[in-house]
Amino acid sequence: MILDAILRQVSVRRDYGALAEYIAPLGRIDPGKFGIAVAMRDGGVISVGDAEEPFSIQSISKVFALTLALGKIGDALWERVGREPSGNRFNSIVQLEYENGVPRNPFINAGAIVLCDVLLAGHEPKEAIGETLRFLRFLSDDDGILIDSEVAAAEKTGGFRNFALANFMMACGNLLHPPELALGVYFHQCAVAMSCRQLALAGRYLAFGGVNPSTGRSVVSPQCARRVNALMLTCGHYDGSGDFAFSVGVPGKSGVGGGILAIVPDVASVAVWSPGLNEHGNSKFGTAALQTLTTEMNWSVFG
Amino acid sequence: MILDAILRQVSVRRDYGALAEYIAPLGRIDPGKFGIAVAMRDGGVISVGDAEEPFSIQSISKVFALTLALGKIGDALWERVGREPSGNRFNSIVQLEYENGVPRNPFINAGAIVLCDVLLAGHEPKEAIGETLRFLRFLSDDDGILIDSEVAAAEKTGGFRNFALANFMMACGNLLHPPELALGVYFHQCAVAMSCRQLALAGRYLAFGGVNPSTGRSVVSPQCARRVNALMLTCGHYDGSGDFAFSVGVPGKSGVGGGILAIVPDVASVAVWSPGLNEHGNSKFGTAALQTLTTEMNWSVFG
Amino acid sequence: MILDAILRQVSVRRDYGALAEYIAPLGRIDPGKFGIAVAMRDGGVISVGDAEEPFSIQSISKVFALTLALGKIGDALWERVGREPSGNRFNSIVQLEYENGVPRNPFINAGAIVLCDVLLAGHEPKEAIGETLRFLRFLSDDDGILIDSEVAAAEKTGGFRNFALANFMMACGNLLHPPELALGVYFHQCAVAMSCRQLALAGRYLAFGGVNPSTGRSVVSPQCARRVNALMLTCGHYDGSGDFAFSVGVPGKSGVGGGILAIVPDVASVAVWSPGLNEHGNSKFGTAALQTLTTEMNWSVFG
Amino acid sequence: MILDAILRQVSVRRDYGALAEYIAPLGRIDPGKFGIAVAMRDGGVISVGDAEEPFSIQSISKVFALTLALGKIGDALWERVGREPSGNRFNSIVQLEYENGVPRNPFINAGAIVLCDVLLAGHEPKEAIGETLRFLRFLSDDDGILIDSEVAAAEKTGGFRNFALANFMMACGNLLHPPELALGVYFHQCAVAMSCRQLALAGRYLAFGGVNPSTGRSVVSPQCARRVNALMLTCGHYDGSGDFAFSVGVPGKSGVGGGILAIVPDVASVAVWSPGLNEHGNSKFGTAALQTLTTEMNWSVFG
Repeated sequence: MILDAILRQVSVRRDYGALAEYIAPLGRIDPGKFGIAVAMRDGGVISVGDAEEPFSIQSISKVFALTLALGKIGDALWERVGREPSGNRFNSIVQLEYENGVPRNPFINAGAIVLCDVLLAGHEPKEAIGETLRFLRFLSDDDGILIDSEVAAAEKTGGFRNFALANFMMACGNLLHPPELALGVYFHQCAVAMSCRQLALAGRYLAFGGVNPSTGRSVVSPQCARRVNALMLTCGHYDGSGDFAFSVGVPGKSGVGGGILAIVPDVASVAVWSPGLNEHGNSKFGTAALQTLTTEMNWSVFG
Repeated sequence: MILDAILRQVSVRRDYGALAEYIAPLGRIDPGKFGIAVAMRDGGVISVGDAEEPFSIQSISKVFALTLALGKIGDALWERVGREPSGNRFNSIVQLEYENGVPRNPFINAGAIVLCDVLLAGHEPKEAIGETLRFLRFLSDDDGILIDSEVAAAEKTGGFRNFALANFMMACGNLLHPPELALGVYFHQCAVAMSCRQLALAGRYLAFGGVNPSTGRSVVSPQCARRVNALMLTCGHYDGSGDFAFSVGVPGKSGVGGGILAIVPDVASVAVWSPGLNEHGNSKFGTAALQTLTTEMNWSVFG
Repeated sequence: MILDAILRQVSVRRDYGALAEYIAPLGRIDPGKFGIAVAMRDGGVISVGDAEEPFSIQSISKVFALTLALGKIGDALWERVGREPSGNRFNSIVQLEYENGVPRNPFINAGAIVLCDVLLAGHEPKEAIGETLRFLRFLSDDDGILIDSEVAAAEKTGGFRNFALANFMMACGNLLHPPELALGVYFHQCAVAMSCRQLALAGRYLAFGGVNPSTGRSVVSPQCARRVNALMLTCGHYDGSGDFAFSVGVPGKSGVGGGILAIVPDVASVAVWSPGLNEHGNSKFGTAALQTLTTEMNWSVFG
Repeated sequence: MILDAILRQVSVRRDYGALAEYIAPLGRIDPGKFGIAVAMRDGGVISVGDAEEPFSIQSISKVFALTLALGKIGDALWERVGREPSGNRFNSIVQLEYENGVPRNPFINAGAIVLCDVLLAGHEPKEAIGETLRFLRFLSDDDGILIDSEVAAAEKTGGFRNFALANFMMACGNLLHPPELALGVYFHQCAVAMSCRQLALAGRYLAFGGVNPSTGRSVVSPQCARRVNALMLTCGHYDGSGDFAFSVGVPGKSGVGGGILAIVPDVASVAVWSPGLNEHGNSKFGTAALQTLTTEMNWSVFG
């Protein structure tokens, strides 16, 4: 079976890519970890490797934050964040200055900080964090999803660049709450820990027209699901998004914890985890595994 | 039927968008022109409006030039041009300087000039131009496709910015032929005139796994077709590519003549033409028509 | 006499330029205020207008902070801040990213924040602030120089862009103390209030080879004075520095409070104040007054 | 005597810096060449080393082109070129795009191409070139000044980046003649060969208030001389201008042929030549020699 073949291929390789050592706990992960889980329409999950082990989802959380933010303020969101690929590194501040504090898309750090500002909606950070966590538990039907407080603390300690981005947007009038509050939400979202199984289950609403196929209940409109998928495809892998679309061919969102959530519309939601990163900050083996999977299964959205 | 409904919607609108007046002949086109053609797998073409009238395909030619260039040098192309969205205007020279003369993707002007340099392959410009023209006639099965020499001349007259791009890349060692030769090919490619019908027919190999469905003969490999589609989706509409993916949801490539070629994998190849452009230089009504079409037909690749 | 003529010229003009309203107390200053003071080698001060009225010296404080920082760590400073004009607005963050957190010169905001980090030297902000204040009082021989606490508070309230700069440099490893401490010093330095008379007296060491001509005692080495003057000439007026050199022809440093300190080597130290600013953020009438003064007196360093 | 001491210091050093090998004839110069000439008010010239040997003046020609262009159109020039340091490399095209084809100052390549466009004034390139040559011969009182045609040819052969700059400005409407004509003048100006003696003599009008002190006749107004000096100080050494002002302390203009013209107002005009360049493209030993000279003679304009 294809997942076993992928696991065999990966298990002999040692060229893992680099760990995200600037967040201390992520630098201590065993680079040999590898898991993949595929959640099908019927609720079944096929998985191999370390698919039950929680890892830090990091920027993958931006997909769920975007979904929640669109639920809160709808298309008004697009006045505060763009929908275009950035052509820059994930934490670049250059573009913010040229475009007056409006991030190019919701999946670069600055854009996700705006999403957190939307989620705050006048409340305390812990309420917004709680809402995100409840949403993830609901989507995965799993109350075991937690925030890794050590990671959250490390995000803050090393988060000067994110403080710079948030303060810059505040100076431009594109945050409604003090930077430290929006960042409080941001750092905790990044620190959510999920297993491949949980993540694949959580992504099903994007694969199946906004509906949770287990319950048949709508999570978001079909149009909203399509749009989130479109943004994942054009902007989901930072400045390696074009490459991911070219080689893997499905919408995906990566995190520097080494996870990737990939959506195969009408077919499956896939989560993969391998902690080593390539030069764009995306999981090296995770990308390779998805490329093999979509090629072998003929799952590319491009024919 | 949906195309008639689209034609009715468009025919009452007068907010055409701006013509590409910096290329003189394009500035004299009737902004009220509108045509759309859908080429199906079985070879049938459904069309409405001015779908038989040739227009200047401009940057849509880059799709075919990319296909030919990949056929000539394969993956070696990617050492000379990237695969990432640009995050800049179509003719920006800033990115070229920051990335040492390597254009971000083959669909911005600088990237397409590299494609033309590849097509030259030591020959005269007229041979490379002839090859492109033969390829288009073959794909459309229509020997009536011609180059508009008035447009080609106007491209050259007003092409100082493209001369700047080509000379800059030459300075960086990323052109193998003198800039004026690569530009000679480039200006003539942009000046190819095709109707929506011809263009929709020409695009079928991208919709159907690299195969011309009429003849059943392979034009390119399925992988090559997928990859061109991926690049169209992430980079096909300049700095409005993210927006097009978000709102239309299929691979597409626009030209400042007002045409758009859109690919619905496994379903259809679509060409639309309306000369007025939006702020990103893409056909305003053309984009709207495609949005209606893909929404009504449920043709988005994103589910 | 020339100063009276300048005062007459200015007193009939009403095209003051814009107040720095983003710092609230500066937005409430009477734009009609105007003062100028010229401190000569013999200790005499000639002045007209509102030359005894304290105003917020803002970025002029960077000249004195630079002098103190050079005294603390000497040429090691130049590993943390450059000596080149910036080619950008005073608070641009773009350059910082392109040059990895090293500000182009000590007179743009980011550069001055580095100076404040040097002045901290492991102590509390209030000690570094006190040191600056003592230095200014010593140079002016005037213990009446104070910090305007309302201005200091307003600097902090509206200082998100400076928070962004400081956090960005911290992320790059170019601050040794927490951003809020360096900024604490920075905001208070900017809020020092001095009159034209006090400021002209304070600047004499730069005009007279590093020596306070009243006492004959050396403040800094002649070489140090020359170098500070050189930096004032090339970088002292943000992105209007070239223009100031071109039209006024002597080293100068402006502040958004409307003050300018100008140095005429071997001749005089001049301070002028008029709160309205030109498009580069430099005092509009202040610049004009200095142009008249240096032209009439033949004081340009350029012959 | 000071020049002899400088010659002795230089003669033992072998860390010449890099030759400008991208212009082939400049790459074949003996890096051990060194000359310096000081032209005094009384017409006397003191010199040591290879001060009689012609070298390629390259960008130093921009000083004389600026003088001629100001003579032709006066302050109207400043609508087409700025007066601010660039904060970028001498041949950067990035700034041109951000500022719509208006070069930041007349001493970067793009700015000098505008000067050449002004000098053309509707005539043939050879007339504009002839005018420049006549001006240099007049200033030096030496008819032996020639253009090195081999260098001029090499400038053109390797001038793709300058072609890019010129075409870009043409696209922005900031050239009045075809790019190849303005570049024809530009390439020949850069190829003028002069000795240190000739160059020092030619620069005297800038040191002495616009007057040729030998004849007592005015070349330009005192104000014009001051302004050219101001631009030399702020912009004369590309992105090393701040450093030159900081360490040498007088107006200067360098060329990649290894020459520097330095102006000591009211005292002397100095030319130095050493072909090896530092990281900013300015003569390495030439800068060091001038630093020693201005320090020992107390010639800094900064006191």
